[in-house]
Amino acid sequence: MLEKRLRNKTLQQRLVTPQEAATWIQNGMTVGLSGFTQAGDAKAVPRALVERVKKSGESFKINVYTGASIGSEVDGVMAEAGIIHRRLPFQAEKRMRSKINSGELLYIDQHLSHTAEQVRAGALGAIDIAIVEAVAVTEEGYIVPTTSVGNSCIFVEKAKEVIVELNLAQPLALEGVHDLYDVGPQGKRQPIPLTGVDQRLGTQAIPVPLEKIRGIVITDELDTTSPIVQPDEETAVMAEHLIAFLRGEVKAGRLPKTLAPLQSGIGSVANAVFHGFLTSEFTDLEVYSEVLQDAVFDLLDAGKIRFASGCSITLSPQKTKQVLPNFEKYKERLVLRPQEISNHPEIIRRLGLIAINTALEVDIYGNVNSTHVMGTNMMNGIGGSGDFARNARLGIFVTKSVAKGGTISSIVPFVSHVDHTEHDVDIIVTEQGIADLRGLSPRERARLIIENCAHPDYRPQLRAYFEEACQRGGQTPHVLEKAFSWHIRYQKEGTMLEEKSEETAVEVGIK
Amino acid sequence: MLEKRLRNKTLQQRLVTPQEAATWIQNGMTVGLSGFTQAGDAKAVPRALVERVKKSGESFKINVYTGASIGSEVDGVMAEAGIIHRRLPFQAEKRMRSKINSGELLYIDQHLSHTAEQVRAGALGAIDIAIVEAVAVTEEGYIVPTTSVGNSCIFVEKAKEVIVELNLAQPLALEGVHDLYDVGPQGKRQPIPLTGVDQRLGTQAIPVPLEKIRGIVITDELDTTSPIVQPDEETAVMAEHLIAFLRGEVKAGRLPKTLAPLQSGIGSVANAVFHGFLTSEFTDLEVYSEVLQDAVFDLLDAGKIRFASGCSITLSPQKTKQVLPNFEKYKERLVLRPQEISNHPEIIRRLGLIAINTALEVDIYGNVNSTHVMGTNMMNGIGGSGDFARNARLGIFVTKSVAKGGTISSIVPFVSHVDHTEHDVDIIVTEQGIADLRGLSPRERARLIIENCAHPDYRPQLRAYFEEACQRGGQTPHVLEKAFSWHIRYQKEGTMLEEKSEETAVEVGIK
Repeated sequence: MLEKRLRNKTLQQRLVTPQEAATWIQNGMTVGLSGFTQAGDAKAVPRALVERVKKSGESFKINVYTGASIGSEVDGVMAEAGIIHRRLPFQAEKRMRSKINSGELLYIDQHLSHTAEQVRAGALGAIDIAIVEAVAVTEEGYIVPTTSVGNSCIFVEKAKEVIVELNLAQPLALEGVHDLYDVGPQGKRQPIPLTGVDQRLGTQAIPVPLEKIRGIVITDELDTTSPIVQPDEETAVMAEHLIAFLRGEVKAGRLPKTLAPLQSGIGSVANAVFHGFLTSEFTDLEVYSEVLQDAVFDLLDAGKIRFASGCSITLSPQKTKQVLPNFEKYKERLVLRPQEISNHPEIIRRLGLIAINTALEVDIYGNVNSTHVMGTNMMNGIGGSGDFARNARLGIFVTKSVAKGGTISSIVPFVSHVDHTEHDVDIIVTEQGIADLRGLSPRERARLIIENCAHPDYRPQLRAYFEEACQRGGQTPHVLEKAFSWHIRYQKEGTMLEEKSEETAVEVGIK
Repeated sequence: MLEKRLRNKTLQQRLVTPQEAATWIQNGMTVGLSGFTQAGDAKAVPRALVERVKKSGESFKINVYTGASIGSEVDGVMAEAGIIHRRLPFQAEKRMRSKINSGELLYIDQHLSHTAEQVRAGALGAIDIAIVEAVAVTEEGYIVPTTSVGNSCIFVEKAKEVIVELNLAQPLALEGVHDLYDVGPQGKRQPIPLTGVDQRLGTQAIPVPLEKIRGIVITDELDTTSPIVQPDEETAVMAEHLIAFLRGEVKAGRLPKTLAPLQSGIGSVANAVFHGFLTSEFTDLEVYSEVLQDAVFDLLDAGKIRFASGCSITLSPQKTKQVLPNFEKYKERLVLRPQEISNHPEIIRRLGLIAINTALEVDIYGNVNSTHVMGTNMMNGIGGSGDFARNARLGIFVTKSVAKGGTISSIVPFVSHVDHTEHDVDIIVTEQGIADLRGLSPRERARLIIENCAHPDYRPQLRAYFEEACQRGGQTPHVLEKAFSWHIRYQKEGTMLEEKSEETAVEVGIK
């Protein structure tokens, strides 16, 4: 039975318990873990490590590098146990977030395409141990990943030792869905020969010298994913705005009927907006994205998507039950790549993607905050949104116009943290409408964003700010004393809303 | 004599005066001009147009798209005459700046690699007329550019009509230095096959159907470039810091002895820092940059640079006199490419450039403002700095630690405009020292930037801000009420310096 999954004879002798593997991890080490958006993450060894440290009470810290976020029951327990010194490049876990924001855990928030490059260049130090989840190990001893590829290839390549978590719960049908291409070092690199979303460039398993694999741990547990928030009335309206815009682009001859390969960021809003394609007229769609969420599989089921390329498959628990047991039926229309390839500027720009990502807040000039609540507290991280927005044919950001029951406006005078600058943001979509910022100067953008995207409750305040700023002049007019006044008001009064905003607006007027 | 330059018989019949050509430009048109960093710009026709409009007093506005900045006597007089409605993607002219900041001229500040892509996709409207400076027109009627390529290829391709300014003052020796490669439309594009700085991919002249060329104007005037500020003691020290850092990278095995292809942004500081390589041990250097300034030619003369690829040659008036008459001797070590190729993420990342660009201000977390004085007034534009910083192996920003006689600190709590986010900035260099931010969390970066890069006069204030912010917590601690207080103080009091900063710092202490 196990031989079907662990096909190399030598490695069959290296089976160990998670507890034993965990003893190999020493204080001060840097560990590279498989896992991307909670999919295909190393599970048993990190948890055994936490148990060991808890029991021994030893003073213990390691650096943890991953693909992106990993399961809550891995990131969360490691954070809680206080064993992480440095963590990169992305996370999305409550307990970890709390340690990050208290300054106890050093968090480096990176573009997801950058990590492999920096590891390869030696700019992030040496990787001591890579722990990679596998659905199988081949005759040669090569590692077949599970539901994500993430940074596993570069971790395995650069690590001194590798631990494989062979996960019997992940369906063997996953084998063959991966396409693992090694770009090679900068300066000695050939063009990446990818010109279509369905093209295959590399191997199906991660090559690794046998002697580098120190142990194989057998596990039997599916990814711990979160339930996804279902599309609601507002996200449905946002999807309508977006689809109407794309329809207009097709009509204007700027997009073909089948659009261009689509990317959608992680999260419920982006997933819900993507969901809108289900009832649209568009067919033969292509996806070139990082994470493939529920909506992608709904669209595959509906025959709307021709082919989807991603770096991970992150499904709600319910959708997991439908997809994984029937994976064979999806396999010929799917490929999973290393995040360096799924998020590579070279490919994103060549294919001319339509990139749809979620904003936390947007300012009147089109700068986007994707990460920091009130400018200071980390939410999750920038993820791949910058890789995509900067290089896409259309860099689209979606957000509901208000949050927290209307006390927070997602459209503000000045974003409290900038992840995407005005130079990288083409389109803003809220449930209120859409702003097409291409070819517009900052003042034109401001009028459009305020009138089309902001919530009506906040428009008078926004107009008043913009008007006062324009009286001072400048390419990007601001009243610096008031630029963050909305955030400060929220912190003090629990709302960004001014008391007499409507009257103020009438008095001031808009030019 | 003219036949040597204008080799096509049909086109020899289309000679016109600048005045006549200017009559073809109608109110409301979009005009694409050759020119990049004041080099190879269309000169006579735009000026004749300004004269015409001044004389007639007609109500007249056009959109002007260029490569980057064009000569002051073109951008300046057009701005002064008020004939520009919309201008992109870069400028560096005093009179134009003033119109931009008053809101009279709509300025779109773009990544220099993005403009061609957006023109090709139709996202910036149609180009009515392209006006391109040429050193020669071939037998087929193809256009040989002069000292820059810029966006000329895409303007010629997409324009309804083309006017050629055949410039007899530009040396014919320039012919052959250009390499004009067409990437083709997104989604139907092959990889750009460039894997070395000296590789040639395309043609030496811009192909254009004969019938598209409406007229040829003969001109006889060199580029109007500005004198460059010579390296001073502070830029020399900055160069020393940078070179010591690169030496360390070589020692650590992260860079080869010949480093990696170098890029340097436009401007005196970047040029001066580049100049520092003259006295360094490094040889066989390669340059893959947008603008090739004086320092590149000094380094070519000194045998330090093996090969330089750029998009324009912008020399001080003095250096022009040395280089242009002797251009043959440089030609085999030079190539000029379209800015879409010189600044293409695909190439920048593949080659793994070392990118050196100038910052206007930097904040304690490593965000960079390249464009806006006090957050509102446009200086020049982002230019190619974003193309390079994001995709380079090392994204380096240089700035003197103070400006305006010490009343402005270039290191501030929160930059008043963000062009490059914390995710894209690897290294900060001032005359005070260097901060290597790779792999560091925001709080670590802040300490390093304050202690290594800030001017000693401002360190106590910066420490006090950071300390107060840390007491509030967060991944990127800030005191939003005070984030822009330095800029506000400068606007009110003419200095960012607090009166009792040193005492304050001693009281607060630094953790």
